[in-house]
Amino acid sequence: MSGPEFIDEIYQDQLRFGFRVKRLLLDEQSSFQRIEVYETKSHGKVMLLDGCFMVSERDEAIYHEMMVHVPMRAHPQPRSVLIVGGGDGGTAREVLRYSNVETVDMVEIDERVLAAARQYFPRLSAAFTDPRLNLVVGDGVKFVACMQDRYDVILVDSTDPVGMAQPLFDAKFYGSVFEALRADGIVVAQGESPFYMLSVQKALLGFVANKFPIRTVYNFTNQTYPGGLWSFLWASKTIHPYKSLNPGTKFGIGEVEMEYYSSDVHKAAFSLPSFQYRALREWIRL
Amino acid sequence: MSGPEFIDEIYQDQLRFGFRVKRLLLDEQSSFQRIEVYETKSHGKVMLLDGCFMVSERDEAIYHEMMVHVPMRAHPQPRSVLIVGGGDGGTAREVLRYSNVETVDMVEIDERVLAAARQYFPRLSAAFTDPRLNLVVGDGVKFVACMQDRYDVILVDSTDPVGMAQPLFDAKFYGSVFEALRADGIVVAQGESPFYMLSVQKALLGFVANKFPIRTVYNFTNQTYPGGLWSFLWASKTIHPYKSLNPGTKFGIGEVEMEYYSSDVHKAAFSLPSFQYRALREWIRL
Repeated sequence: MSGPEFIDEIYQDQLRFGFRVKRLLLDEQSSFQRIEVYETKSHGKVMLLDGCFMVSERDEAIYHEMMVHVPMRAHPQPRSVLIVGGGDGGTAREVLRYSNVETVDMVEIDERVLAAARQYFPRLSAAFTDPRLNLVVGDGVKFVACMQDRYDVILVDSTDPVGMAQPLFDAKFYGSVFEALRADGIVVAQGESPFYMLSVQKALLGFVANKFPIRTVYNFTNQTYPGGLWSFLWASKTIHPYKSLNPGTKFGIGEVEMEYYSSDVHKAAFSLPSFQYRALREWIRL
Repeated sequence: MSGPEFIDEIYQDQLRFGFRVKRLLLDEQSSFQRIEVYETKSHGKVMLLDGCFMVSERDEAIYHEMMVHVPMRAHPQPRSVLIVGGGDGGTAREVLRYSNVETVDMVEIDERVLAAARQYFPRLSAAFTDPRLNLVVGDGVKFVACMQDRYDVILVDSTDPVGMAQPLFDAKFYGSVFEALRADGIVVAQGESPFYMLSVQKALLGFVANKFPIRTVYNFTNQTYPGGLWSFLWASKTIHPYKSLNPGTKFGIGEVEMEYYSSDVHKAAFSLPSFQYRALREWIRL
């Protein structure tokens, strides 16, 4: 066999995990990051950015459903959506399932990630051809800063808070996000591991504390992120995250097609493990 | 450095994960299995049985809290408990926190696991000295078969359904469990991964289908089992798993001391991901 037997992610220099590899499909250094794509024995194709697993074909639906349907079902009528990052296309795909969505701006900084998604992940990048999608290659921080009162939902689908994604992890960015959202707007952002990076969830809640009256985090589990358990930040101007959900069916969203999400899972995702709840309690407002 | 850099578990020949090792403490072949103990960089000491992670000091509380407190808080007055397996002592420790518990029978087949727990995991095996604990080295299947109408709660804290643990995975065993339980008895059993071994949860629900009117599974996440997400079987004669919980404080159980469990987490644990719910729906009765 050529190439490695397993492709591993080494996490915080304390643990590693990986998938058995069939073959290497891409190993490219873009202007922003190293992009690797492997075909695995069990999880279809996987993409890594700077050595961290971003997506596997087998379980990508979990992350994308939980990032998208939680805010989209909590909002009574989401029509205008912004995605910051999300280069593989999975987040856009889930948003565009809503028949009432009129326009989606998606701002991805690295065009080589888009190219890799087009070539190796057609089930995700299929969304790129939807006429409601405005796909922009550029800097999400600058893009958001130019927008006013424009979006019902903003999804920050970013990599980890190091390197190019660092500007997405501060209060100034979330100030711009607040301005870019409509009066009942919601922002959801990738929030790292409760087990290993609680500090990121605490920081995110801090960034939104001055602007957003409603703020918390919610969790899901998947197969490709270290530790299995993972978080999203939730911040909103008026909407409670789970007390009342829109009937997805009105917008063409049937739960029977979901891999992971359901109304029941939606609500349960806000029940945080004790250690996490204790650490974040003073930052949460519901 | 002597010994391996990482101690990995290889799972279903498709993925692996592991922890950075400081040193090997024990590598012993007992009459039943290979027992390894390592000191890791980040997770304290870890124990593996036949190459599978069983417990790490860092996160063992999660598994043990979720196995124990879900049935113990759902039962109005649990006084008599049986643990099948559970050789590291963590399950017994959590059960014995209840001041109302009068007697705990614990039947572990491998005395070498008990010895390893005593030597390397004092925080878990401390429970072994509690006068309410009757610790038996023997075959749990035979032990249960001799008991009638004796336990409020039975906890099957076993390894995977291969080798010596295989007899714990059949309808005959659960027939004995039913007889050994009192009129409002509950059994909870280790149920493997929803992502990778749904078939085990289906089988377990099948084993209890003829006897127990109430049966389902619930989930938790931890850091040491493959895929992060893990399941328990729940089967009971009369008690609903989460509609009404006893006030733990009455029995000396304060949630503030818990690492993962809370009443809120208890209920949320029964909200299964869609793929799992669909696969098990016809077997679940609530």
